[in-house]
Amino acid sequence: MKKDSDKKRVERLLRRGVERIIGREELEEKLLSGNKLRIKHGIDPTGAKIHIGRAVVLWKLKEFQDLGHKIVLIIGDFTAQVGDPSDKLEKRPFLSHAQIKRNLKTYLPQIGKIVNLKKAEIRYNSSWLKMLRFEEISKLSEIFTVQQMLERRNFQIRFKDHKEISLREFLYPIMQGYDSVRVKADLEIGGSDQLFNLIAGRKIQEFYGLKPQILLTTKMLEGLDGRKMSTSWGNVINILDEARNMFGKIMSLRDKLVAKYFELATTLSEKEIKIIKKLSPIESKERLAYEIVKFYHGEKKAKDAQKFFGDTFRKKKLPKKIPSYVASRDERWDNFLSRNSLTSSKGEARRLIRAGGIELDQKKITNPATTISEGGVARIGKFKFIKIKF
Amino acid sequence: MKKDSDKKRVERLLRRGVERIIGREELEEKLLSGNKLRIKHGIDPTGAKIHIGRAVVLWKLKEFQDLGHKIVLIIGDFTAQVGDPSDKLEKRPFLSHAQIKRNLKTYLPQIGKIVNLKKAEIRYNSSWLKMLRFEEISKLSEIFTVQQMLERRNFQIRFKDHKEISLREFLYPIMQGYDSVRVKADLEIGGSDQLFNLIAGRKIQEFYGLKPQILLTTKMLEGLDGRKMSTSWGNVINILDEARNMFGKIMSLRDKLVAKYFELATTLSEKEIKIIKKLSPIESKERLAYEIVKFYHGEKKAKDAQKFFGDTFRKKKLPKKIPSYVASRDERWDNFLSRNSLTSSKGEARRLIRAGGIELDQKKITNPATTISEGGVARIGKFKFIKIKF
Repeated sequence: MKKDSDKKRVERLLRRGVERIIGREELEEKLLSGNKLRIKHGIDPTGAKIHIGRAVVLWKLKEFQDLGHKIVLIIGDFTAQVGDPSDKLEKRPFLSHAQIKRNLKTYLPQIGKIVNLKKAEIRYNSSWLKMLRFEEISKLSEIFTVQQMLERRNFQIRFKDHKEISLREFLYPIMQGYDSVRVKADLEIGGSDQLFNLIAGRKIQEFYGLKPQILLTTKMLEGLDGRKMSTSWGNVINILDEARNMFGKIMSLRDKLVAKYFELATTLSEKEIKIIKKLSPIESKERLAYEIVKFYHGEKKAKDAQKFFGDTFRKKKLPKKIPSYVASRDERWDNFLSRNSLTSSKGEARRLIRAGGIELDQKKITNPATTISEGGVARIGKFKFIKIKF
Repeated sequence: MKKDSDKKRVERLLRRGVERIIGREELEEKLLSGNKLRIKHGIDPTGAKIHIGRAVVLWKLKEFQDLGHKIVLIIGDFTAQVGDPSDKLEKRPFLSHAQIKRNLKTYLPQIGKIVNLKKAEIRYNSSWLKMLRFEEISKLSEIFTVQQMLERRNFQIRFKDHKEISLREFLYPIMQGYDSVRVKADLEIGGSDQLFNLIAGRKIQEFYGLKPQILLTTKMLEGLDGRKMSTSWGNVINILDEARNMFGKIMSLRDKLVAKYFELATTLSEKEIKIIKKLSPIESKERLAYEIVKFYHGEKKAKDAQKFFGDTFRKKKLPKKIPSYVASRDERWDNFLSRNSLTSSKGEARRLIRAGGIELDQKKITNPATTISEGGVARIGKFKFIKIKF
């Protein structure tokens, strides 16, 4: 007889943050029997930063890891190059080897904030994918029809809108699916936008005579403004965001998303979350911000961020120490910002200005070509303050 | 100054049997300047036999070869496996290596009946295609969009009819196009259904920084019944058809196709063809049959075939020597035919019977399950007669 507590634990594991499971019965059985699973998760280092929406799946992996299962992290150094079209509504560019290498350097430490990398098996899919030849690729392509590919939601939309779909993008699911063969995955965990790729893995495993992997997708965490969390929309919270910045961002979250963020972005128990929900909206959001910052930066920084936020915004005070920057007489704002590395480029400076992200003495700068004619206290983005001198 | 005769010759070369030329001016210029071209033609050994529709393009190659150009024959031992979807309205099966090897054995001698193989450069595309890896294939896939692929006529039709298009089929033009890069083709000649693949060759050559090849497609030669010439429809004349059979088949050609056959399937000059056209339909068709048989089997066999046809059909006489076959009492027709190798299989026997191709003493056999209850003279197909004994 299984203990009731085991059953409950499995039930929780397969419920919180979970969108869909293909092969649920089989999975429950395996988990209850104490079977240790090989759990694949693929990560393409397509950018430098991992945001907390992307991290939802990493939390789920950690839960499985804590139960003793083997996490097999596929670092998609090959697939990143080709580019996953999942949920993309535009054609993706090819990434260069150099870019991927740069991204990779910062990727693993970020993942390591959630998953125990020492216990995980880490594989690079270039090691097998770059060896695959045309004959094998043709056979793999034969498993899929063009129609099946076009059923994919985002392809459908692009197809209807007469937006280009590159043939290369059709090859992507094949690559990711083949990874499942090479690591003999029992279960693959991915975000809900990965369902198509994950199913491809099942088909390709079957083609090679393997038992198809069980699939588990996690729920999608929306960005601060309720839209899809996306770097290009500026509504993301990155794992590496500074504590104060992260705290402030979360405080700008839409109220209706707070509950979902508790479920998907914290490790608080459901019981604790229930209690917090009884607080006022602003109090529970502050608790959310505190919990998330605490996880990524520790208790001390979380407390500091909370105090900073209270001081700066609630009490309309400026931070005590404001760094000074020297502007040249009549220097353009975009030049000033990028020259002092306050933005990563002039382009970003211009975007930030146009989005209303720069103020001088509480007056918004709206035109990037505006020159700086007098000193004062400037706000850069939401939470950074500087003094401008000449 | 170019000689007028040169100009006329080039004009004829680029007119007779030609459907379309992309880069015509450039081609004319090169031909008149005495430039020697590398002319690619790809042949996938997907079947055992080459029919005279397929041969139209070989005739054109021969003309170029006679002018001193280098014919580069690409034997698609790799592409045959994957299968060219050109003008196919059904998904093609994968061919096995063994099947391709078998086909190859009979292919080259058939091509050699038209093109001088000693002067040609013969290349097997497996030698480079099987070496191509995923990264290169991804880059090649990037040259094409899914939408461009679906613009292809036959894909369009299948897409509308909800018939499967395998992703593998989308890879085919890439393979064939890459061949053009490897052999540095100046010109590619192919059947009209090859236009899409040929254009892919241009794009891929450009991708690799080469000058895109000129394209020339030849007209399509319809089958005996006016439909597309296709082995599965039984309306083909194969290069290897026996002289008498070939002659008889051509005599069953639709009258309105005779002129086109003269243009595309004989080497008679346009002047000669003009004279022949003044003959009665039956006379000109007989001349057509004679000319085609003569080309593939020599004058002697052509004369014999003509006489045989006259004796058998015009004068309603049976051939003098009819071979005898022994049937078992109450043997089924399909069994009898395949057992005696009169058909290649029981399936073919059944098809032949259902198509009305078998008569016993001038009475049609309509059901393959019919048993042979008495002897007599049987007609097998159009021109073969046997005696059945017990």
